[in-house]
Amino acid sequence: MQTVDKYIELINRAISSIEYPQNPFGLYEPVKYQLDMGGKRVRPLLAVMACDMFGGNVEEVISPALGLEIFHNFTLLHDDVMDKADIRRGRPTVHKAWCENTAILSGDAMQIIATQKVCEAPARVHKEVLDLYNKTALEICEGQQYDMEFETRDDVTCEEYIEMIRLKTAVLLGCALKMGAIIAGATPKQADDIYKFGENIGLAFQLQDDYLDVYGDAKTFGKKIGGDILNNKKTYMLISALTKAIGKTKERLYALLDANADDDKIAQVTAIYGELGVDKIAREKITEYSQKALAYLVDIPNSEELKFFANSLTERKL
Amino acid sequence: MQTVDKYIELINRAISSIEYPQNPFGLYEPVKYQLDMGGKRVRPLLAVMACDMFGGNVEEVISPALGLEIFHNFTLLHDDVMDKADIRRGRPTVHKAWCENTAILSGDAMQIIATQKVCEAPARVHKEVLDLYNKTALEICEGQQYDMEFETRDDVTCEEYIEMIRLKTAVLLGCALKMGAIIAGATPKQADDIYKFGENIGLAFQLQDDYLDVYGDAKTFGKKIGGDILNNKKTYMLISALTKAIGKTKERLYALLDANADDDKIAQVTAIYGELGVDKIAREKITEYSQKALAYLVDIPNSEELKFFANSLTERKL
Repeated sequence: MQTVDKYIELINRAISSIEYPQNPFGLYEPVKYQLDMGGKRVRPLLAVMACDMFGGNVEEVISPALGLEIFHNFTLLHDDVMDKADIRRGRPTVHKAWCENTAILSGDAMQIIATQKVCEAPARVHKEVLDLYNKTALEICEGQQYDMEFETRDDVTCEEYIEMIRLKTAVLLGCALKMGAIIAGATPKQADDIYKFGENIGLAFQLQDDYLDVYGDAKTFGKKIGGDILNNKKTYMLISALTKAIGKTKERLYALLDANADDDKIAQVTAIYGELGVDKIAREKITEYSQKALAYLVDIPNSEELKFFANSLTERKL
Repeated sequence: MQTVDKYIELINRAISSIEYPQNPFGLYEPVKYQLDMGGKRVRPLLAVMACDMFGGNVEEVISPALGLEIFHNFTLLHDDVMDKADIRRGRPTVHKAWCENTAILSGDAMQIIATQKVCEAPARVHKEVLDLYNKTALEICEGQQYDMEFETRDDVTCEEYIEMIRLKTAVLLGCALKMGAIIAGATPKQADDIYKFGENIGLAFQLQDDYLDVYGDAKTFGKKIGGDILNNKKTYMLISALTKAIGKTKERLYALLDANADDDKIAQVTAIYGELGVDKIAREKITEYSQKALAYLVDIPNSEELKFFANSLTERKL
């Protein structure tokens, strides 16, 4: 993973050296604050790795890769406004540290800055990269829309949920990899394959996030275990349980959705998940998408590092 | 103005035939609603006129021109959220007709759709057009930021105000014209000149809007006369008055800012504007920017129609 660490350092250095206009300070300061929150920089990393794998010039992919990271952080910023979330990565969210209007407007500016960075892609692939980026960006909005709609629906199916996380999370990983491939001059087939790899790894990763929220280790997961249960969040776990449960179990589960948000609720819902085998279903689904992802790498050269990194993402503490 | 009408019809037809994805309906329906609100389509019209003036193929400019109109409508949508405005062009604003989260997210989607349309610019000028568009889009956010900051400041100068409206309103007119010029293959000097023309016409237009809010004819202005005075809006009129007033007049003006928002307030503030000659200052400034604009057209061929249209914008009911 030495190369990965080297790339992350490269990316973080590039993020730190982005030059924002001096004024208006009130517009650009929240943008910097949001980007400085850290995070794993997975998306730009994937773009850089893909570019390198296909023998491209890594210098050429850095700016478009930053564009993806800035876009991702823009979505987090606006999502936090919509979710009324107070804390992000241990710090107050932008709309808490400033105000909601600042969060909306600085987010808008961030979306433009992201596009500017993507526009620094080499002229020979400018349109192709931009088209991929815009298509993906719009899909992410669609995913967020479905996510919001699901909150007030109680008939969401597992298929609909998978489609939502595909749009909201997975396509950006596919886009990052494909962007690196395009800039490196990979063949269309290779670019599409690596996109599919990213998309499926993204699905596995998000499903695992749902799983770890119930079965993870509080020390390494970074969030309170059972947080999704407390919030009645319609995760793959809960949707599967609601779909599978019948009779008394279904009644108990529905009653628990109305119960006080305390540790007892977490324990009881987790017990139902166990009874219904939802934990096993989720693990199988994660494995299914991971394997589907890997199958797209058969014709891709030099993919060992990417496989290793993807494993580190989807097999963390499972 | 027959050509102008023909172009507006072309633009409106193109707007009506934009194909949005079927789903999620809840994301795209507000986008359509916002775009169908109408408006004068000034920005796409300017892009088309400029393209035609320089002998370009009008077909090539339509999509990028739509991008500008969609971006403009996106800014209106998010501005309405930030201003908590209930009505836009006689209809409930998106955040009123749906909700705030929908307005934020559909606005985000609209920004991406706008960029997609701009990306349909011909390959030979793709990067140039995109760079101009992104730069302008970011400037518009800067303008909105200044506008919001001015609300809580009482030391805004006329120069700062002009810079704010330049960013918030004028640069997009310049951008529209320059985009048309670039697509038509105009020289860099011509493209810059027509940008400057648009920028200065934009300043004249916005200053006139401020002026007409006090001195306009309610029937043709479309908004209540004195609305800005009622809301203590820091327009060019009020800033000039606050700058010029001294002694008792200054005291009266400050007292009026705290007074009840009624017709008497409008009458008294308007009276002070008259005493201070703020109406004359504003008219002179409008003329100054209109003339400055026209000076940039000296080396531009076939500009009669554009001049005529600009006059119709800045000399309406003055």
